Amino acid sequence: MIESRPAHAGMPVADVDTPALALDMPAFTRNLERMQAELAGSGVALRAHGKAHKCPDIAKRQIAMGAVGVCCQKVSEAEVFVDAGIDSVLVTNEIVAAAKLARLAGLARRADIMVLCDDASVVPLLGESARAAGTALKVLVEVEVGGKRCGIAPGEEAARLASLIERESGLSFAGLQAYCGSAQHKPDYAERRDMMARVVEAVKTTLSALGEAGLTRAYVTGGGTGSYPFERDSGVFTEVQAGSYAFLDTDYARILDEDGAPLQTFEQSLFILSTVISRPTKNRAVLDAGHKAHSMDSGLAGIAEPPGGQVTGQSDEHMVVALDEGTPGFAIGNQVRLIPGHVDPTFNLHDWLVCIRGDAVEDVWPIAARGPGL
Amino acid sequence: MIESRPAHAGMPVADVDTPALALDMPAFTRNLERMQAELAGSGVALRAHGKAHKCPDIAKRQIAMGAVGVCCQKVSEAEVFVDAGIDSVLVTNEIVAAAKLARLAGLARRADIMVLCDDASVVPLLGESARAAGTALKVLVEVEVGGKRCGIAPGEEAARLASLIERESGLSFAGLQAYCGSAQHKPDYAERRDMMARVVEAVKTTLSALGEAGLTRAYVTGGGTGSYPFERDSGVFTEVQAGSYAFLDTDYARILDEDGAPLQTFEQSLFILSTVISRPTKNRAVLDAGHKAHSMDSGLAGIAEPPGGQVTGQSDEHMVVALDEGTPGFAIGNQVRLIPGHVDPTFNLHDWLVCIRGDAVEDVWPIAARGPGL
Repeated sequence: MIESRPAHAGMPVADVDTPALALDMPAFTRNLERMQAELAGSGVALRAHGKAHKCPDIAKRQIAMGAVGVCCQKVSEAEVFVDAGIDSVLVTNEIVAAAKLARLAGLARRADIMVLCDDASVVPLLGESARAAGTALKVLVEVEVGGKRCGIAPGEEAARLASLIERESGLSFAGLQAYCGSAQHKPDYAERRDMMARVVEAVKTTLSALGEAGLTRAYVTGGGTGSYPFERDSGVFTEVQAGSYAFLDTDYARILDEDGAPLQTFEQSLFILSTVISRPTKNRAVLDAGHKAHSMDSGLAGIAEPPGGQVTGQSDEHMVVALDEGTPGFAIGNQVRLIPGHVDPTFNLHDWLVCIRGDAVEDVWPIAARGPGL
Repeated sequence: MIESRPAHAGMPVADVDTPALALDMPAFTRNLERMQAELAGSGVALRAHGKAHKCPDIAKRQIAMGAVGVCCQKVSEAEVFVDAGIDSVLVTNEIVAAAKLARLAGLARRADIMVLCDDASVVPLLGESARAAGTALKVLVEVEVGGKRCGIAPGEEAARLASLIERESGLSFAGLQAYCGSAQHKPDYAERRDMMARVVEAVKTTLSALGEAGLTRAYVTGGGTGSYPFERDSGVFTEVQAGSYAFLDTDYARILDEDGAPLQTFEQSLFILSTVISRPTKNRAVLDAGHKAHSMDSGLAGIAEPPGGQVTGQSDEHMVVALDEGTPGFAIGNQVRLIPGHVDPTFNLHDWLVCIRGDAVEDVWPIAARGPGL
């Protein structure tokens, strides 16, 4: 259920047991500094997305660097973060099951807790759980802004739901969630800009409907690593929910700026350490990391080092690498440093994060909220 | 790191906390019986693949039903199975790191352990670990039979490697592994048959080369749920390594028989229990299970019940379902039973397996070897 630690502080990175998830500490720290610099003076806060890493040690560093708190997707994640002493947690998801709502309301006795709602039928359940726990729950209305997942229609429908929440004993209407997942992963700048223009328009329509209903609220949260400059400069968002900015992956590496060049703001800090276990031919190496160490929902992993190889396939426990003619560095037993295709589900496969600095292991952190998420 | 149990024995299935992995016990038991019936009288044994489920409770039932032991891919999995009292474990993978080899050789003091080798450079490392542990390791030569992953070329090259192993103090050459992963997932019968004919040919060539080298060994292992009838009837395989047969998934459901009809030997026993958390439109429902509860490397999940919906997308924590006009059963809070796209990496996401019988939870088993696998 919990695997042994693949490393201990002070050991050489070359000796880490593989497959293991590794964080380059200098790159990670620079990423945290850069996001705070990106938002400085904008009046827009960072709420770090804890669902990306599920690791309280990381969340604490994000908050120390200026984040106002964390967000996450699951009650079980919120519990881990509150237990670790984080006092402001937004669950960016609809919670509807009675047992989960009871746990969430319980957490609100120990920390500042917010949750989303997109349906009138859930309002009495939310109210009941808050009243039963003798606490107050802050509820955001989630507005559908183009992601075609959860969320109520913007404008009057959203305002009617906000009124219902505000009238429900035990609840307070706290603001809006407007997150467009698809805008995070659009490589083309113009597509991203146009998509985000529609998001901002939907938020403005909803704020206006809220104003007419006497429910003026300033708090508007959303966005992520792929879109945050648009939320920051929108004039309506007060908070962005970036998570991947601290790590990056091959999917974010495909995102381009206005001139069609790859974005340079953040750098790759997250890697999978793997080992060559087979060299059946001159042009093929096989690594000890597959679906159970790397999530390929956004594509295959990249290779950070050594150079000269390209991942061509992944199965449950193996990764197949095609090698350029005469490439050294892929002998049996050699360590290969992979770039994950997608941060969040890859973190979720690992129990431990190996923090590295140069050639040495600096620390090993538990990915304490790992799991399907109850 | 370990999530709370999503259920307890005796509770209604409808009350299981979601997302959760569930095993229909009657269907699971029938699958175990059917595989033993399929092999009965053939002289070919079943070695149940523990990498599919990573769960000792399941492995014990497979052995009680007639399996000769388990196989798995990782030393960490072998440790969990040996700790659970299973006394015959084949690691169907190349193990090359010194620390892992030391653990593997240590296990050989407590159980019958076998491991693969496909490269002469690893033979001294295997020997050293066995001698250091004061034990003997049984080593199989892995032959490349079309899967283009690990494995040495069949015939004389394989026989030379077998000789090296046999001469190395602390090791004994025990037989051949000939596994063709791609043959497991070919829907078309004729393609599967032709691929397996090449596998059997490669095994025969190698057995002949071994005979010439004075290394006659009867033990030939390989195959899986998609190909086992070919190994069983080959005249050269002595063992099949099926794992998914006990559970099935949408990928295996695509496999066809000689007449182009779906295979009927086994039935779906593994499900993901999820909950509707949002109903933004009449035609869209959103479930609380995404990449962290279901691995979509082999495609999206199917829906076992209720009828009338089709999964159209999956993100980290959500699944989007398109609903037929007027479909009931997808109200907020309702439970939806999903069919996984791929057994092995989906098991790996969960800490607990909820055993169900009819409408009640019968037991909850730990997926004790879950993890990237050290």
